[in-house]
Amino acid sequence: MKTFAHPDQAGHTPEFFLQRGRVRRNFEVPARAAALEAALHRLGLAPAVPPPLPPGALASVHRADYLDFLATAAAEWAKLPDPGPEVVANIHPVPEMVAQGGRTGANIIARTGWYTADTACPIGPGSWAAIQAAAACALAAAAEAAKGGTAYALCRPPGHHAYAARAGGHCYVNNAALAAQHLRDAGAARVAILDIDSHHGNGTQGIFWERGDVLTISIHADPDNYYPWFVGRTAERGAGAGDGRNMNLPLPFGTPDEGWLDALRYALAPIRDFKADALVLALGFDASKDEPLGALAVTEEGFLRAGAMIGALRLPTVITQEGGYNVDVIGTLLERFLTGWSAA
Amino acid sequence: MKTFAHPDQAGHTPEFFLQRGRVRRNFEVPARAAALEAALHRLGLAPAVPPPLPPGALASVHRADYLDFLATAAAEWAKLPDPGPEVVANIHPVPEMVAQGGRTGANIIARTGWYTADTACPIGPGSWAAIQAAAACALAAAAEAAKGGTAYALCRPPGHHAYAARAGGHCYVNNAALAAQHLRDAGAARVAILDIDSHHGNGTQGIFWERGDVLTISIHADPDNYYPWFVGRTAERGAGAGDGRNMNLPLPFGTPDEGWLDALRYALAPIRDFKADALVLALGFDASKDEPLGALAVTEEGFLRAGAMIGALRLPTVITQEGGYNVDVIGTLLERFLTGWSAA
Repeated sequence: MKTFAHPDQAGHTPEFFLQRGRVRRNFEVPARAAALEAALHRLGLAPAVPPPLPPGALASVHRADYLDFLATAAAEWAKLPDPGPEVVANIHPVPEMVAQGGRTGANIIARTGWYTADTACPIGPGSWAAIQAAAACALAAAAEAAKGGTAYALCRPPGHHAYAARAGGHCYVNNAALAAQHLRDAGAARVAILDIDSHHGNGTQGIFWERGDVLTISIHADPDNYYPWFVGRTAERGAGAGDGRNMNLPLPFGTPDEGWLDALRYALAPIRDFKADALVLALGFDASKDEPLGALAVTEEGFLRAGAMIGALRLPTVITQEGGYNVDVIGTLLERFLTGWSAA
Repeated sequence: MKTFAHPDQAGHTPEFFLQRGRVRRNFEVPARAAALEAALHRLGLAPAVPPPLPPGALASVHRADYLDFLATAAAEWAKLPDPGPEVVANIHPVPEMVAQGGRTGANIIARTGWYTADTACPIGPGSWAAIQAAAACALAAAAEAAKGGTAYALCRPPGHHAYAARAGGHCYVNNAALAAQHLRDAGAARVAILDIDSHHGNGTQGIFWERGDVLTISIHADPDNYYPWFVGRTAERGAGAGDGRNMNLPLPFGTPDEGWLDALRYALAPIRDFKADALVLALGFDASKDEPLGALAVTEEGFLRAGAMIGALRLPTVITQEGGYNVDVIGTLLERFLTGWSAA
């Protein structure tokens, strides 16, 4: 299995995190990637640096105006009077506004609100390079999968909450969606995206909502009490050509290995039925029982077994790293997961 | 002219205000009401305390689920682990979420995000009583106008950014909309709402968007560079029965008395053409040249002349207090405005 990571990702150092009415420490930190990279070295899977992004690569799943926002936000923000150190939204386009003709002008405060869903996606001076580096890892892994292999992209920042034109929840560019689209463009007729991060993969759902060629399945903690709060329920099945091509499997808080693996087993059947030519696995470790904002209670053994179950699909696969915030355990969890995978 | 104010309004003491990426001091403070009340006393218009809200009074323009949120938010929030001192949203329902079946569950973090458009409407323990008190002032003033008079409601918190089910921009319950609906229910066939706060009256626009019986006009600074950022443009004219019944007059930054009064003159013509039976004036003083977040440059003389021009309509009128945040000048501006009005 090839693996990819990029040193530019360490330049994304978000600080701002608004939680229960207070600004607290952001936990999507560079140390996460360091812990995961150390695990890859222990496994003998030292990551390669991916080639630079080809021009226009991100436009396969993202809108050009949104990408322009991401690319220019930090520099525009710095020109404001007395700006905070990071680009952080303080207003968002609620549906009434959009229904009544709302749009954003060029002002960076407006664009920041328009292109974000929450306050958990601050942008600093090093963020854009890191976002591109993470996407480059995903696309390099997708190139391997397009050749029939399996590859792991150590993406940081993660991507599965990013819509076509909206950041949110630590995510800016949807690395899993990029990988899936790359596989489609490389000839795979049908691609499945399986998301086992503990949070609903709402951005991925959104990007492929009306598409029949990409099956999206997310296993996550019940959004009634967990980010992204408003979506991630079973009733959301896609629309148009994508009707029935989105599946959400929300789990009760505290679900242990058994229930989580049952959901995974349940999810693998439609992937087989779909006759997917390739798989993108959005892999988070925040389902761990040791997660700081933990909602599920999966053990090391659970991740080992999950790796074996998904690996047994024997599909060309891109694994994109999503969440998982306990830097003391995520390295071990990656080791266990990939060990299970290679034993499949 | 009768005037109304309520002591419970002083219990709303918002602290949180996220601006350009930093938490700064909230300027929608009780001292605003004190300054305005002092001006009323100087004019010999000492305010009366309005009668309590009748049951269900707020439901004439707001959704029941939203009102339940406002009423219970502070107590629910206090039950969270390690909560901040105020209810503050950290996520909002962006259009993709709503289009894909999004909804809120019962969790207070989810409801806070669902029912707010931005981070500028924190809710503290005294907020709900203050919100009801402000609404009671507006309804007491509306009862006076329904008898053919004119009355001023010293509403705090203000209201014109509140939608039927969404708070935003220091606003929770739309006092101007409540007053307009009261006038309709009391027999006025056509009611006009004129909003001269320097910010677009987006909540009022939203509430009456599809209604032909209430004309809404807002004069405000260009939203390309000013709250509410996404709406407030001339193209927003209403829909359905309300098509053509909404008018926005955005003004360039720095517009002085002359341009502001020209816009006001322009706005009065459709109110006359509409043959409004009654008027609600959403009165902010943040168009002042001395406003801390100032976008326009209106002088004391400008507010005097505006009072005279609007008073000359000689319509039964409810004046609801909206914004204006320089506590050193808003009392004088209210004096000048009402002096102009009474000289009309």
